[in-house]
Amino acid sequence: MCRWVAYYGNPIHPDTLLYDTQHSLVEQSRSDRLAGGQPNADGVGLGWYGERESPGLYRSVQPAWGDRNLQEIAAQVRSPLFLAHIRAATGTPVEQTNCHPFRHGRWLFMHNGFIDGYFDLRRELLLAVEPSIFSGIAGTTDSELMFYLALTFGLQEEPLAALERMAGFVEKTGRRRGIEEPLQMTVAASDGERLYAARYASGPVVNSLFVTADASAVRALYPDDARLEQFSDESRAVVSEPLGDLPGLWNEVPAGTAIVVQPGHDARVPFTPRSP
Amino acid sequence: MCRWVAYYGNPIHPDTLLYDTQHSLVEQSRSDRLAGGQPNADGVGLGWYGERESPGLYRSVQPAWGDRNLQEIAAQVRSPLFLAHIRAATGTPVEQTNCHPFRHGRWLFMHNGFIDGYFDLRRELLLAVEPSIFSGIAGTTDSELMFYLALTFGLQEEPLAALERMAGFVEKTGRRRGIEEPLQMTVAASDGERLYAARYASGPVVNSLFVTADASAVRALYPDDARLEQFSDESRAVVSEPLGDLPGLWNEVPAGTAIVVQPGHDARVPFTPRSP
Amino acid sequence: MCRWVAYYGNPIHPDTLLYDTQHSLVEQSRSDRLAGGQPNADGVGLGWYGERESPGLYRSVQPAWGDRNLQEIAAQVRSPLFLAHIRAATGTPVEQTNCHPFRHGRWLFMHNGFIDGYFDLRRELLLAVEPSIFSGIAGTTDSELMFYLALTFGLQEEPLAALERMAGFVEKTGRRRGIEEPLQMTVAASDGERLYAARYASGPVVNSLFVTADASAVRALYPDDARLEQFSDESRAVVSEPLGDLPGLWNEVPAGTAIVVQPGHDARVPFTPRSP
Amino acid sequence: MCRWVAYYGNPIHPDTLLYDTQHSLVEQSRSDRLAGGQPNADGVGLGWYGERESPGLYRSVQPAWGDRNLQEIAAQVRSPLFLAHIRAATGTPVEQTNCHPFRHGRWLFMHNGFIDGYFDLRRELLLAVEPSIFSGIAGTTDSELMFYLALTFGLQEEPLAALERMAGFVEKTGRRRGIEEPLQMTVAASDGERLYAARYASGPVVNSLFVTADASAVRALYPDDARLEQFSDESRAVVSEPLGDLPGLWNEVPAGTAIVVQPGHDARVPFTPRSP
Repeated sequence: MCRWVAYYGNPIHPDTLLYDTQHSLVEQSRSDRLAGGQPNADGVGLGWYGERESPGLYRSVQPAWGDRNLQEIAAQVRSPLFLAHIRAATGTPVEQTNCHPFRHGRWLFMHNGFIDGYFDLRRELLLAVEPSIFSGIAGTTDSELMFYLALTFGLQEEPLAALERMAGFVEKTGRRRGIEEPLQMTVAASDGERLYAARYASGPVVNSLFVTADASAVRALYPDDARLEQFSDESRAVVSEPLGDLPGLWNEVPAGTAIVVQPGHDARVPFTPRSP
Repeated sequence: MCRWVAYYGNPIHPDTLLYDTQHSLVEQSRSDRLAGGQPNADGVGLGWYGERESPGLYRSVQPAWGDRNLQEIAAQVRSPLFLAHIRAATGTPVEQTNCHPFRHGRWLFMHNGFIDGYFDLRRELLLAVEPSIFSGIAGTTDSELMFYLALTFGLQEEPLAALERMAGFVEKTGRRRGIEEPLQMTVAASDGERLYAARYASGPVVNSLFVTADASAVRALYPDDARLEQFSDESRAVVSEPLGDLPGLWNEVPAGTAIVVQPGHDARVPFTPRSP
Repeated sequence: MCRWVAYYGNPIHPDTLLYDTQHSLVEQSRSDRLAGGQPNADGVGLGWYGERESPGLYRSVQPAWGDRNLQEIAAQVRSPLFLAHIRAATGTPVEQTNCHPFRHGRWLFMHNGFIDGYFDLRRELLLAVEPSIFSGIAGTTDSELMFYLALTFGLQEEPLAALERMAGFVEKTGRRRGIEEPLQMTVAASDGERLYAARYASGPVVNSLFVTADASAVRALYPDDARLEQFSDESRAVVSEPLGDLPGLWNEVPAGTAIVVQPGHDARVPFTPRSP
Repeated sequence: MCRWVAYYGNPIHPDTLLYDTQHSLVEQSRSDRLAGGQPNADGVGLGWYGERESPGLYRSVQPAWGDRNLQEIAAQVRSPLFLAHIRAATGTPVEQTNCHPFRHGRWLFMHNGFIDGYFDLRRELLLAVEPSIFSGIAGTTDSELMFYLALTFGLQEEPLAALERMAGFVEKTGRRRGIEEPLQMTVAASDGERLYAARYASGPVVNSLFVTADASAVRALYPDDARLEQFSDESRAVVSEPLGDLPGLWNEVPAGTAIVVQPGHDARVPFTPRSP
């Protein structure tokens, strides 16, 4: 299992969410609270949209808690949309290219979960990736491959539909090989304009996913911090598990649901795997 | 807190104790059982006596559980005396030179615990190190400094007395600065002939330390492994916490006690800090 | 370009060839002499046959010259057959899984050179790998893929023929895409019994490869070292470039040639790519 | 020997100087041009002044040429004053805390050169560091120690005088031990307002140091890049060696000279070690 945090809203320094909250992401790297209290320490990553065309990407194989470079970057950059991830490897090596988020052009993607029987399915899934983008695959995780499958199935044109096609393709491929519950996922993706997230599993066990109720929920994380009163009304955090204990602030995203955080009203829609 | 394992006896592959037991050292790197269930993942080290004059030393800043090189080396080398350590940093950086064990000539040293108020005491403790060995200090931990203080106070001539002088000096220095309980330690040291270990704390909280009751205890860790029936009668493991659940096999070393594992009868004596 | 050294003969400590010679492999990591004086510092690896069933494998992304673990391991282990490699990356990431040698069961493999147009060919080459071993591919280099293609084409049964089929397949695949000179390679492979090496390129530029003339050549590297007078008559070193300046000791392996270092007479045969 | 670049002027992305010039700093990490063509690949660092009180600091032990995180950060942040450094170790370990620049509060410091006989002098030099800042020393290099000596001798109040006192103290300490030429240094230091640099050696061999003649010199590095026409008239780069071949653009800083890059006229004054 991994843990992640995605933020959309006023430009902020990422350390606000990664370090300063009661149960910050970096704290979760030592021990999560909703997935057994295990460390999520097989690497860390931060992708953020800044002033360059391509989002910035910092990834390292260190446990997040001891990564001084992460702390520096999270303190210095300022971004209206960023994705941060701490990894707990499920069989593939602890390497920089296996750290999330993954990037393709303007797109970032990160994942918590796994493809069951991945090592048996990997070759077949790889073959389905559009040849023109194939050489962009730099690591060996199921997560990066899910991203490339989503790109193959139209992520840049129809984000949620492409994620559903990816999920459908993984399930079909797995079930053809006798795997009953091929997919476990909470994913986040962004093009720098909107933040897409989905929670889904083939079986009854589904990884957790939460979203702040509204901007006041974000502000309430920092009761003593006047700076944060300036959070815009559109500020949202989407997280694997709540960053604090305040009741009422964190809404659980139901299983089989996708959300779109965007200017104006956010969207919440069913997430249903479909044939590519 | 850290965790460690020291072995003395028949030459074995270290992976036997690091990986193959029920609660192996590598398993403890994810979560210990006697110190709060926290990860010990700020680096790992293995020092072993082989056929060269100097013991071999492998140290890395990765969590032990994901360190493939550790697994390879622990499987390939064979040694009658080795020390292995997983680190949980208490303020100093996660770096190779801060990983245990530390080495000086034929001597290896490792530590679980801390010097309270270390950053205030460090300068004064450093000044006490014998100038002729000062340049050997390669990292910045309290543990390495304890080793160099012990060397200064005669570790190579009178190992247990030198450890007691080191402890006494640390306590005196700390208390002069108003620190009530300056020292928490379980340490292991070896010259390749004998294995010295001590358990001590200035206050009532003392890190755990265990030693196998006798060679049959070591064998019993591997009930299904015929190879290990050949463990010699002198084989001992000294550990921060038991590698398995078998009752009667692990003897707790009392606080304020040192042990010497050696050919013939092992020694168990009081450990009392003294003035250098 | 990369550099490598393979040794077959009396059991020795690998540091003898990696560190102690006039132009040792570690010295070549700062600057090679036959390929432009560039650093070969994108990682290092040592694979050695010891007493376990599987050969040992140490790989790290550090420059070899600063890798203290490499120095320790190369000093402590003793092996009658080892392969060591320093990497200069040609487009794929600097990561542990991209370091040579690569291992499959008892087999080790390493490579100096490149597949021209690799990023365009990678998908097609991957597809040709036998599905049952596909999941063993842990990195993203052309070199590891060449190893898996050779395994697919029979490396374990007919080593040299399989390497020729691999080369033929890479050339055919490349040329179908308009690449005139698809392959540049010096490779070494071993099953722990014999050492296979080949030097080949599709075009006129061929990486260098040398083999010691006989055991006296190896001994002459260490004129002042009585220990090495005991080198057996079968000891051989195969290297990217000579480890010293002594004339007459290093025989250049001609382009388009493979050698087999083995008990009794070594073999030297033409290396001709063929259809798989 | 190391190499470094310091920039003062309009806010720019550091990748402009680190990657985009003819002989960029990252190019120098493979092979410098004025110090023997050796790699400077024992780590890299970038310190930059941004919008937070403390400057940002990225340091890594990888060779700069393969460090993808460096490339990302250097592209994303924007700074009016930054220091970048590539290390060639002279005896101390390749570790993050030994990478330059070093930081204390608002101050950054970096160095190219060495203290001759450092391992013999280290203890005595350490003792001279003001106890209240002693615990900030995180690594083991001569360079960091020079920074802490300069801080001890008043760097924050009288920067150039403090650097002269540091140099004088190092020379006196070394000569008392019979070292004839104790110091070789080009250093850069900044408080975020001004950039201080000095070139000095105890003997006749002095590391190189250059400064751009004026802002037009900086612009001329990028003849085809209209963006850079906007460089302010105060923009300056201070470098170990020129980033390009354009004659007339780079002024060599004479040995025994310090410069201050600041608003209005820059200063150039003699640098003369003095007693602390």
